[in-house]
Amino acid sequence: MAKITHRSPLAPERFPRVPAVAGVRFATLEAGIRYRGRHDLTLIELAPGTTVAGVFTRSTTAGHPVLWCRRILPHGRARAVIVNAGNANVFRGSEGDAAVRAEAEAVGQALGCAPEEVFVASTGVIGERLPVEKITSRVGDLVAGLDAGGIEAAAWAIMTTDTFPKGAFATAAIGGVPVTVAGIAKGSGMIAPDMATMLAFVVTDATVPAPVLQHLLSVGADASFNAITVDSDTSTSDTLLLFATGRARNPEPAGADDPLLEGFRTALQTVLTDLAHQVVKDGEGAQKFIAVTVRGAESDASARRIGLTIANSPLVKTAIAGSDANWGRVIMAVGKSGEPVAMDRLGVAFGGHVVARAGAAVPDLDEAPVARHLAGREIAIEVVVGEGRGAATVWTCDLTHGYIDINADYRS
Amino acid sequence: MAKITHRSPLAPERFPRVPAVAGVRFATLEAGIRYRGRHDLTLIELAPGTTVAGVFTRSTTAGHPVLWCRRILPHGRARAVIVNAGNANVFRGSEGDAAVRAEAEAVGQALGCAPEEVFVASTGVIGERLPVEKITSRVGDLVAGLDAGGIEAAAWAIMTTDTFPKGAFATAAIGGVPVTVAGIAKGSGMIAPDMATMLAFVVTDATVPAPVLQHLLSVGADASFNAITVDSDTSTSDTLLLFATGRARNPEPAGADDPLLEGFRTALQTVLTDLAHQVVKDGEGAQKFIAVTVRGAESDASARRIGLTIANSPLVKTAIAGSDANWGRVIMAVGKSGEPVAMDRLGVAFGGHVVARAGAAVPDLDEAPVARHLAGREIAIEVVVGEGRGAATVWTCDLTHGYIDINADYRS
Repeated sequence: MAKITHRSPLAPERFPRVPAVAGVRFATLEAGIRYRGRHDLTLIELAPGTTVAGVFTRSTTAGHPVLWCRRILPHGRARAVIVNAGNANVFRGSEGDAAVRAEAEAVGQALGCAPEEVFVASTGVIGERLPVEKITSRVGDLVAGLDAGGIEAAAWAIMTTDTFPKGAFATAAIGGVPVTVAGIAKGSGMIAPDMATMLAFVVTDATVPAPVLQHLLSVGADASFNAITVDSDTSTSDTLLLFATGRARNPEPAGADDPLLEGFRTALQTVLTDLAHQVVKDGEGAQKFIAVTVRGAESDASARRIGLTIANSPLVKTAIAGSDANWGRVIMAVGKSGEPVAMDRLGVAFGGHVVARAGAAVPDLDEAPVARHLAGREIAIEVVVGEGRGAATVWTCDLTHGYIDINADYRS
Repeated sequence: MAKITHRSPLAPERFPRVPAVAGVRFATLEAGIRYRGRHDLTLIELAPGTTVAGVFTRSTTAGHPVLWCRRILPHGRARAVIVNAGNANVFRGSEGDAAVRAEAEAVGQALGCAPEEVFVASTGVIGERLPVEKITSRVGDLVAGLDAGGIEAAAWAIMTTDTFPKGAFATAAIGGVPVTVAGIAKGSGMIAPDMATMLAFVVTDATVPAPVLQHLLSVGADASFNAITVDSDTSTSDTLLLFATGRARNPEPAGADDPLLEGFRTALQTVLTDLAHQVVKDGEGAQKFIAVTVRGAESDASARRIGLTIANSPLVKTAIAGSDANWGRVIMAVGKSGEPVAMDRLGVAFGGHVVARAGAAVPDLDEAPVARHLAGREIAIEVVVGEGRGAATVWTCDLTHGYIDINADYRS
């Protein structure tokens, strides 16, 4: 496993001062699943009556915890999440399913709830046996250590190759009642040196029925976690869960479009986007944070596909790593997407400086301001592809020697 | 532009001794389009009556030469190809189209044929003006230098960031008449430091009607050039052309399935596959040649999509660069493909050594022979994904620091 000897240069200065969320407690400890000298096991306890929503990897080889979470999600109720780092519990056949079940049963027994109210997440090596007894034997210790202020410790304990813990929060009001949304996430490559996965857990004290919560999360994920890419690789274990404890006792919204939810929707989006950006900023080897905005596409979905093709292009990502205003590669990536494009409308800008317009290079371009923008840490690539109204922004990082260093290492 | 200071470690020992092909002559010279001290302009002259087939990039931002070739291809006749290296003539609006037209007219005038019988290809920087006068003014010199033995010089002159010239040939008989298939190619990244493109020109003295030739080439390309990837990026200028001069005077085949063509089909496939492999072996930064074979898929097309997802995965490619038997990343890539997979049938082998079988890791695996295989230059990844009959092999190279070095450099 690659040693983390430094923080990403794109890391925020410090972990945010996340307020406690009523009905949520955290506990972490060192279970010794793979790592030594750090916490690797996390329990998040949720008050009775908590509703839940989830978004998972689209991988057809998803891990055993993902299969479990997908199965219990339709009940819409949650009392806990148990998360381990160091082993992803993927590709272990019936033994892997049994391990998840054992975790859920142990937590259910300790908290007095059904196993089907216990969500499970694992991140780490793929294909190795999860030493589940190291988890089940420590559930009692976890429950004894539950603490409403433990969110930062949890953000640390779920990390694998991350170089900094990721947290975010926002507040809003629903019908005049103040509510809080807070979350943590981990993930640095889609799969780090065998360390799989993006995980994110978001909690709120708002009262929101599960179907409404699911709608809000699905929409929110599309504009955040589903709009980021580090290396285009898809984890077997990506898991995003949103829990609402209802302890704020706000008026219950009638549906996802209820005007009551306006502020809450914004707060949720703020937290999801903030966490997603932090994942990219911790991308393996990342030196630059890149926002790709596509306008003038046939539809928003088309704009997003073009944006992701640009964001996933190794040649675009290496050009940005080299601070090279190589708009030819952006044009290449637009063409590679296969999406409808009007060549005579196509334009590219870096940080607002137009380098190509209406299907041709800008003549006698002053490259100095472009070069200054590209020398920075936060890069904006803007593309116009035609006269449509579709638009989207996606985020990625550059592709550097650091990525190769981290990923071409031997395991162990 | 990155300097080429060494040959790829995967390069063949020498350029093959390609025999002359009746009805085909080559000429090259230094036009000074971008490079200095090397030939960068190539003319291939084809005897009257030559038939032609072509396969081009699927990019929606294809270069001006590709647009021209696509337009004239349906005539099915060719008298010449003119190729320059150093400038791809892409994204230049009507000026780019006019430049191609000027090239075709100049060659047509010199050879006494219609411009629509002159194919044009350009490879190099995207978005800069092609100094077309440096080409049109030298057509006379090219024609004066035409030489039936000039194929190796042409293989050199079409190179951009390639580290070795690429040639291949094979012979066959059609109705007892011996025929030759010979070809050259260039390409090392899908787009090198602004140097776009894979180009390949294959010639034969066989008599094959254009529609039959097109069918053979389309099928042949699917199992060769369309089954390789260096970095997943798609050039704006990829061009594969096949010319048949008819000088062998073999009996004319009635259709692509005519048994007469059995040997010819094999010879063509041999040349196409050999050239495609050489392109991968010159992949930017390549240290290892990787064959990915997928079996048990729902269809051959599904197997190919799974294979390409594995071959394009940065995490698989960096693992191979590190000689790491990281089959978890292969499983990840299989899942990412979105293709139907039977998890309980899934298996992975490296160089014939099975590391995972029937949906789980092989217990107590002896890793030594796997490690020995992965330490080599030619790596085989074999995947079984279910009980279907679909199979495919695709080829790629590893992802190394060399790729970053080459592509994160500034232009110029």
